[in-house]
Amino acid sequence: MLTATTFPTTNCGGVRSWSIPDSSITSLTTTPSAVTIRSRRASRSYPVRAMIEKERAETQRPDTFLRETDDNSSGDVRTSFEKMIREAQDSVCSAIEAVDGGGNFKEDVWSRPGGGGGISRVLQDGAVWEKAAVNVSVVYGVMPPEAYRAATANGNAKPGPVPFFAAGISSVLHPKNPFAPTLHFNYRYFETDAPKVMVTPCQYYTDAPGAPRDWWFGGGTDLTPAYIFEEDVKHFHSVQKSACDKFDPSFYPRFKKWCDDYFYIKHRDERRGLGGIFFDDLNDYDQQMLLSFATECAGSVVAAYIPIIERRKDTPFTDQHKAWQQLRRGRYVEFNLVYDRGTTFGLKTGGRIESILVSLPLTARWEYDHHDALGMQQPEEGSEEWKLLDACINPKEWV
Amino acid sequence: MLTATTFPTTNCGGVRSWSIPDSSITSLTTTPSAVTIRSRRASRSYPVRAMIEKERAETQRPDTFLRETDDNSSGDVRTSFEKMIREAQDSVCSAIEAVDGGGNFKEDVWSRPGGGGGISRVLQDGAVWEKAAVNVSVVYGVMPPEAYRAATANGNAKPGPVPFFAAGISSVLHPKNPFAPTLHFNYRYFETDAPKVMVTPCQYYTDAPGAPRDWWFGGGTDLTPAYIFEEDVKHFHSVQKSACDKFDPSFYPRFKKWCDDYFYIKHRDERRGLGGIFFDDLNDYDQQMLLSFATECAGSVVAAYIPIIERRKDTPFTDQHKAWQQLRRGRYVEFNLVYDRGTTFGLKTGGRIESILVSLPLTARWEYDHHDALGMQQPEEGSEEWKLLDACINPKEWV
Repeated sequence: MLTATTFPTTNCGGVRSWSIPDSSITSLTTTPSAVTIRSRRASRSYPVRAMIEKERAETQRPDTFLRETDDNSSGDVRTSFEKMIREAQDSVCSAIEAVDGGGNFKEDVWSRPGGGGGISRVLQDGAVWEKAAVNVSVVYGVMPPEAYRAATANGNAKPGPVPFFAAGISSVLHPKNPFAPTLHFNYRYFETDAPKVMVTPCQYYTDAPGAPRDWWFGGGTDLTPAYIFEEDVKHFHSVQKSACDKFDPSFYPRFKKWCDDYFYIKHRDERRGLGGIFFDDLNDYDQQMLLSFATECAGSVVAAYIPIIERRKDTPFTDQHKAWQQLRRGRYVEFNLVYDRGTTFGLKTGGRIESILVSLPLTARWEYDHHDALGMQQPEEGSEEWKLLDACINPKEWV
Repeated sequence: MLTATTFPTTNCGGVRSWSIPDSSITSLTTTPSAVTIRSRRASRSYPVRAMIEKERAETQRPDTFLRETDDNSSGDVRTSFEKMIREAQDSVCSAIEAVDGGGNFKEDVWSRPGGGGGISRVLQDGAVWEKAAVNVSVVYGVMPPEAYRAATANGNAKPGPVPFFAAGISSVLHPKNPFAPTLHFNYRYFETDAPKVMVTPCQYYTDAPGAPRDWWFGGGTDLTPAYIFEEDVKHFHSVQKSACDKFDPSFYPRFKKWCDDYFYIKHRDERRGLGGIFFDDLNDYDQQMLLSFATECAGSVVAAYIPIIERRKDTPFTDQHKAWQQLRRGRYVEFNLVYDRGTTFGLKTGGRIESILVSLPLTARWEYDHHDALGMQQPEEGSEEWKLLDACINPKEWV
């Protein structure tokens, strides 16, 4: 049996390799169940009990989902990040409702007795949007001790579970008009406490108070049209670049490529859409700078997206345009169910299914194309559909 | 370096643990690419080059897709199985076209220069069926030597790749009317040659001609309605049971349970539908008996399904019935993209995408239900929708 003094408290670097991806932040949930978290550094998976309580419905939004025991002072990143995502949720939902004219967001508030919770807002079958979801959540959980052990030098140490904190905003907006693009964005902050050390088999205590925490940011904003309007895509990418350039000139090119690489539907050798920015496990910059960066990105969503929707929402379209949009929606489903880390992680962990799968479009379509004997669904070269597909296969520089 | 005599030719049992699942039989394809095959016995995955050539379109159906070097005598199981699946394809397609009245199957024939090929038939947007696909294929491939080595006692032996043969019929039939159920069936036969032994790094020769081959059968037929008509489900299961009972009284209960277990959407704790029969890796019976059994099952599809469609295809329905069907179609997509071994295997191996995903419905829908604050899409207790869901959650004995 170990005592606290034998436990390596100074090296938390390995914990960074545990990332809670994307929508799982809105979905880690329910009674304890066996789940697997992927360790990129260790290149293996560990079984882990998701020590998270079952959520319960709330009738009112609380001022904060943070635990009272957290350092809730204004300088605390948890506090600032929660405030930021809730403000972003409000401003995006207001902008959507104003443009939609018809639909209103329905809100579900939920919490967990031990802390954490979230606000899900979904607008369904509006005048402009078929399905628009903007969710925020705050999750307290525990990572498996094996994660820590595998990543630290002292392989003989037997630390207990590593508590973590995750907060994020996640949104997918699917318009009705086939010329109006789908938007997805997600920004998240992740933090680990100092690991706890086993004293007796059933009893843990936290290592030295104030022991180093590890933290990182992830997120991105990306555009998925069924038809390309170059002016729209340039505008969208310009806004992303401007947000990035305020912080580091390397951000846009790096995160633009990361986005193209991430939203890749391998079995079709196509990207889901026309990209934007994406980053994960980001902690090798000043923490306050990255907080400001995530805030800037989330705050840019309305400016990046709403002008495009205003231009395209009333464009006349034919059944053929709609069918093409539905086929592209099918690709969206394929990416999310087969590849998206957040979705696949959320499904495996027994998360809140409705929150995880709210990213799927209201409707999608899969046609079999018998015209090409080898079954390739290739639109005619030079057609508008072909141009979109070409840009999904060969990512372009838009700004 | 090994000589042929040091290679363990008598124990091929381990090779059985390599199964080529379900639709992959219609999808193993393209130029050599790195793929992973799951070994259940070894509980790990191996990277393997799918040594299968790119398919090419054919204008005519050949008499056989078997290689000329195969033993094509009438007693050969490969020959019999190919004949059986092609006859089943013909009879199912004829029955479908006769009932549909409007649509016709479009056919794609493809082959590979070194042997193997297939016939894909898809009827889309017919009068009764929204999408109906009945595909047969014959595939020659190579399993990785590690598979063999891991499964044999002589861990020091260094066998070369193990050639395999797979043939199968795979079908999904999605009707338009929400009271008419979806049907899926698939029957497949798998065989390995004697492994080849490395003589020089770039040269293989086959072990003693006539060395024992390994083989197994897999397959099943299952029903996925959006609404339950007990008479339909009882009829369907009765036909499955009759087919099974002709061979072994243990088959129906065993394969019925296997089916309920296999088509399980874990993240929803629901089955995809109301089951039927399913079996895999079956070889612990007489080979000719299992060939007859698979033949009987495939030959029962028309009798099990068509009478149900004739009863339900013209039932009047409301938009609400259609919306419920579309939600259940969404579950179908979730199962196939997230869990189905054949689909996930096919997507990872760079298979023929149109053949793999032809199983997806033409259209599907995902609604977010805001009425329940915890997002459970529960139909009202006692409603027809609730009855279907209940049977998907708690599998019933129908006969």
